[in-house]
Amino acid sequence: MGWSPKLAVGAWVVGMQADRFMPKGYREFVPTEEKIRRVGSVPGVTGIELTFPVDFTTLKASEVAELLKQNSLAATDIGLNIFGDVRWKRGSFSNRDDSARRAAIDTALAAVEAARVIEAEGLRMWMGQDGFDYPFQVDYRRQRELLIEGFREVASAAPDLRVDIEYKLKEPRAHSLIDNASKAILFAQEVGLPNMGVIIDFGHALMSKENAAEVASLALQYDLLAGVHFNDAYGDWDDDLIPGTLNLFEALEFLCVLRQADYQGWLTLDSFPFREDPVEAVKLSIRNTQGLIEMANRIDLEALKKAQETMDAVATQEVIRKVLFAN
Amino acid sequence: MGWSPKLAVGAWVVGMQADRFMPKGYREFVPTEEKIRRVGSVPGVTGIELTFPVDFTTLKASEVAELLKQNSLAATDIGLNIFGDVRWKRGSFSNRDDSARRAAIDTALAAVEAARVIEAEGLRMWMGQDGFDYPFQVDYRRQRELLIEGFREVASAAPDLRVDIEYKLKEPRAHSLIDNASKAILFAQEVGLPNMGVIIDFGHALMSKENAAEVASLALQYDLLAGVHFNDAYGDWDDDLIPGTLNLFEALEFLCVLRQADYQGWLTLDSFPFREDPVEAVKLSIRNTQGLIEMANRIDLEALKKAQETMDAVATQEVIRKVLFAN
Amino acid sequence: MGWSPKLAVGAWVVGMQADRFMPKGYREFVPTEEKIRRVGSVPGVTGIELTFPVDFTTLKASEVAELLKQNSLAATDIGLNIFGDVRWKRGSFSNRDDSARRAAIDTALAAVEAARVIEAEGLRMWMGQDGFDYPFQVDYRRQRELLIEGFREVASAAPDLRVDIEYKLKEPRAHSLIDNASKAILFAQEVGLPNMGVIIDFGHALMSKENAAEVASLALQYDLLAGVHFNDAYGDWDDDLIPGTLNLFEALEFLCVLRQADYQGWLTLDSFPFREDPVEAVKLSIRNTQGLIEMANRIDLEALKKAQETMDAVATQEVIRKVLFAN
Amino acid sequence: MGWSPKLAVGAWVVGMQADRFMPKGYREFVPTEEKIRRVGSVPGVTGIELTFPVDFTTLKASEVAELLKQNSLAATDIGLNIFGDVRWKRGSFSNRDDSARRAAIDTALAAVEAARVIEAEGLRMWMGQDGFDYPFQVDYRRQRELLIEGFREVASAAPDLRVDIEYKLKEPRAHSLIDNASKAILFAQEVGLPNMGVIIDFGHALMSKENAAEVASLALQYDLLAGVHFNDAYGDWDDDLIPGTLNLFEALEFLCVLRQADYQGWLTLDSFPFREDPVEAVKLSIRNTQGLIEMANRIDLEALKKAQETMDAVATQEVIRKVLFAN
Repeated sequence: MGWSPKLAVGAWVVGMQADRFMPKGYREFVPTEEKIRRVGSVPGVTGIELTFPVDFTTLKASEVAELLKQNSLAATDIGLNIFGDVRWKRGSFSNRDDSARRAAIDTALAAVEAARVIEAEGLRMWMGQDGFDYPFQVDYRRQRELLIEGFREVASAAPDLRVDIEYKLKEPRAHSLIDNASKAILFAQEVGLPNMGVIIDFGHALMSKENAAEVASLALQYDLLAGVHFNDAYGDWDDDLIPGTLNLFEALEFLCVLRQADYQGWLTLDSFPFREDPVEAVKLSIRNTQGLIEMANRIDLEALKKAQETMDAVATQEVIRKVLFAN
Repeated sequence: MGWSPKLAVGAWVVGMQADRFMPKGYREFVPTEEKIRRVGSVPGVTGIELTFPVDFTTLKASEVAELLKQNSLAATDIGLNIFGDVRWKRGSFSNRDDSARRAAIDTALAAVEAARVIEAEGLRMWMGQDGFDYPFQVDYRRQRELLIEGFREVASAAPDLRVDIEYKLKEPRAHSLIDNASKAILFAQEVGLPNMGVIIDFGHALMSKENAAEVASLALQYDLLAGVHFNDAYGDWDDDLIPGTLNLFEALEFLCVLRQADYQGWLTLDSFPFREDPVEAVKLSIRNTQGLIEMANRIDLEALKKAQETMDAVATQEVIRKVLFAN
Repeated sequence: MGWSPKLAVGAWVVGMQADRFMPKGYREFVPTEEKIRRVGSVPGVTGIELTFPVDFTTLKASEVAELLKQNSLAATDIGLNIFGDVRWKRGSFSNRDDSARRAAIDTALAAVEAARVIEAEGLRMWMGQDGFDYPFQVDYRRQRELLIEGFREVASAAPDLRVDIEYKLKEPRAHSLIDNASKAILFAQEVGLPNMGVIIDFGHALMSKENAAEVASLALQYDLLAGVHFNDAYGDWDDDLIPGTLNLFEALEFLCVLRQADYQGWLTLDSFPFREDPVEAVKLSIRNTQGLIEMANRIDLEALKKAQETMDAVATQEVIRKVLFAN
Repeated sequence: MGWSPKLAVGAWVVGMQADRFMPKGYREFVPTEEKIRRVGSVPGVTGIELTFPVDFTTLKASEVAELLKQNSLAATDIGLNIFGDVRWKRGSFSNRDDSARRAAIDTALAAVEAARVIEAEGLRMWMGQDGFDYPFQVDYRRQRELLIEGFREVASAAPDLRVDIEYKLKEPRAHSLIDNASKAILFAQEVGLPNMGVIIDFGHALMSKENAAEVASLALQYDLLAGVHFNDAYGDWDDDLIPGTLNLFEALEFLCVLRQADYQGWLTLDSFPFREDPVEAVKLSIRNTQGLIEMANRIDLEALKKAQETMDAVATQEVIRKVLFAN
């Protein structure tokens, strides 16, 4: 039956979602218990990505662990939210204000404790506010140093867990400090600890004008691919759409590279179904993801490998089109 | 002293601002009274753009009018907010749900009443939710028909006011129905009423991959340029940055085309200073705008006109660089 | 068997192709006779788009007509090449230099004669050099006036043929004057003659950040859709790739809108297989196009129409995914 | 008088230039002697970047050296042209065809010899054809390995010279293998030899959606910044425009970071004045560059440093705007 990666869903996908034109939210607030229940109800899903502190404010970590068990869900990484509080509006680990910076690192260390309790694999570090909006706004070198020092402190304190950097070109800042896969790898190397990892989000790769399969291959080569966020997007923004609705070939190639490496980590849905019923959107997303995995499994890898030796587009497309076109 | 357009500020610029990662807002909520006071405190500003219903919920229109007088501010257009309520999450005028559509048009008609009371010039119609996120999601032709019908109903009911279409490529939808200047002009023509207008937002033009000066010239040629939103942006997103911090030459050219047409409408600041003190950001924005206007006034129009006859980049740049470089 | 549009190929697709880093060309020069023969050899292709004067320099129009007959090919539009000679480097119809402008119009008029001889349907007017590279470089209004006057002169002289505007965002200029579908429609209207048309190139639509199906629907509504260029592209540049290799869903929706309108014009392959065997690339392109058409024919239009009334992404995707996913 | 970097010009800037729509060229062919003479005639320019083999085909390296001396020009790096011959259409160092790959490396080794004779500082390695156009077209890992091996062979053979990687997002390929600054740094590290360097092209940084100052700072931190190509661009394509005509603030910040590091390498003009008199375009480019350097020198670095500690956009812009605005 072929390669069959574990499927997970980010808890926020089925939660309330807002944007700058609808700050009240497109839906009502959804408590963590209900988000877990919703994710657990989706056929084919065995994991959930929670965020800290968001999902650990009214519930203790042990209570969250119990809920996961009840819903037959494993924890993937815990997503660290050190971007959604105004004290971090100009940065978390790279903040030049010591108290803001300390608070961010302390939050990460508290997340480490929570991760242990719920048996998460590590922390997903998406540094949303660590960046800049204007030319001249920051001292880039100092920002990077502070960022790396922060990663090092957290990774040192959690040798039993992974510390996984998720890059993104921009948003909410006009420029993020960690803006593409190669920089994430560079930074992970600079931290210099064996428990660093890199997470690739399919839509983030497109926004950084990368080929997602190529950067997955790069992260795999450096033995750093720790996780994958899956979704779809137009390529100029982090649209966080339902997978399998827009970029079929690039999604297929991305999955094919993971299949070739026999990637056994999580494939985690990260989408924002603002205007859809979130559970229905997740169900469709998972079915589409399974459909794409099934297609990726039907690709003749031997024929592909041979065609790639020619570097000829016609030869390689002849192999791929078989999974889509009958003629 | 040259061309000197009237300067205004959008009330939201000095209000609370949120985004999807900081839904609680980067600042506290700011009541309308305070927003008017803040805008009125900025040297050089003589107008304000309020939004309906946002700025008319706790205050009656007559009270708003009184506040404007007290702060020596004129009303520009009223910005219509028919995007920030969940019933319009899939569209306002183009919504296939009759009750949502009716509510949007009725809100516009109520805004017309408010506009008359505060002596605004018209309504700014930015149709934020009228668009689509996915291929196949909507019947484009039907969406357009509904949109045009809505414009027609409102413009018919307000022959004493302008109904001004503001286009934008996307956000909050992945695709907006009215996504560039030419389409806004086409739609204004299709409505077929003399009080239709078009508003050009500098950053929106960049995001639509337009040259802002070129589309300003186009709207002027069709006698439709009803207003201008000013700001700065990187060109892939509606960054809503402080003017005069990024795209100097394109901003200068945009102002130069307005100067050449002796544009006497409003130049309205539309920015989102999420992480800055909003009043300080507005003061800097206005000083930068005045600085840019001063530069635009220093351009030798006769020499430019002559150089443009050659269509030669070196010849035209020789005229322009004089306002920036001494060598 | 459903909707089955006529398929054509641009003669340049199977010709020599160069770029700024390979000015000598990726292949040897290919004479017109051979290009016609190559296109005629591809199963499923019944039309060819030739360019003027390129394909009419060593052959008389009557000889070209004879070659078409021998190869069982009909002429679509003739593509007008008034961009590939240095006298037009700063513009053709919009050139401020009268002699360059006159030469461009005279070339178009000569192309009209050729079109009559080979029984082409009209002229495809892609105004490659009519644009600008720098802010301030041109007087936009004057450029537009000259452009429109040129179109009017040609369209007046050829009431028996169509004059079809093909828009493109940029390249070879950093900005083209006719940069999106709405502007093409606006300009076609301004010319004010019944034989004006608009051509939509799938990759050009993507580059202009349009949804290709949406602008096809727009052009159809204005009764202006005169032709279609088909290919694939990443969306930031006119990549001119083999169809069906990248953007499957948007291509499918584009074809679906054409099917819904029962479009009976040409679907013309416009690609640049720089590094591929051109005939093999064309064969694959046609098979992929036929595969996509077959998929578009399998979409349940009644169900789609009904789902689109909800404007719900999940509902509409449920209809579409049936043609791709079995689960 | 402040920081004053050495200014150079790429020989191709004053040569013939073509594109895919004007393969015959926008100008006549210009022999190397004349290109050197033209560059030498521009006030303020002390260096030239030649390309190999292009500028070493009719002249021996010793003759080139003599011409440089006569024109008072130093050689910067030699730009390696292993992209402009059809045998490399699918890649040079990363070509899966051994003979094409060998020919590319041998050309690099021959360029090393030429570099020694003309006393160039190293080789600029822009791997234009090493990339891919379609998903699935290549085995990314194998391509990278071959590329790194090629760099290693050349760098090993030239310990007395630098081997400098210039990255670019795309063109002529739809995707380049070395597509951003971080990947160039990663690859330079992987080669593992002390004479590897990285070249940052201002317009390439914009196209990769980077902030040019930020990546310059990154390359400086890794002690890899070996050279700079200067120009201007809109950010979605390698427009290669005249500097100081479009992105003033980002250019200024880029130069400011170089000034802060007291960068003493070359600032080399890399532009394509297709439609301009090339010598006039270069003269204007150099004057604009000098004007920008003068502005960068007027920035109060102490005040900037202090403002950057606040990470506040208003505070930092107050420092910067002083060099532009009087109000």
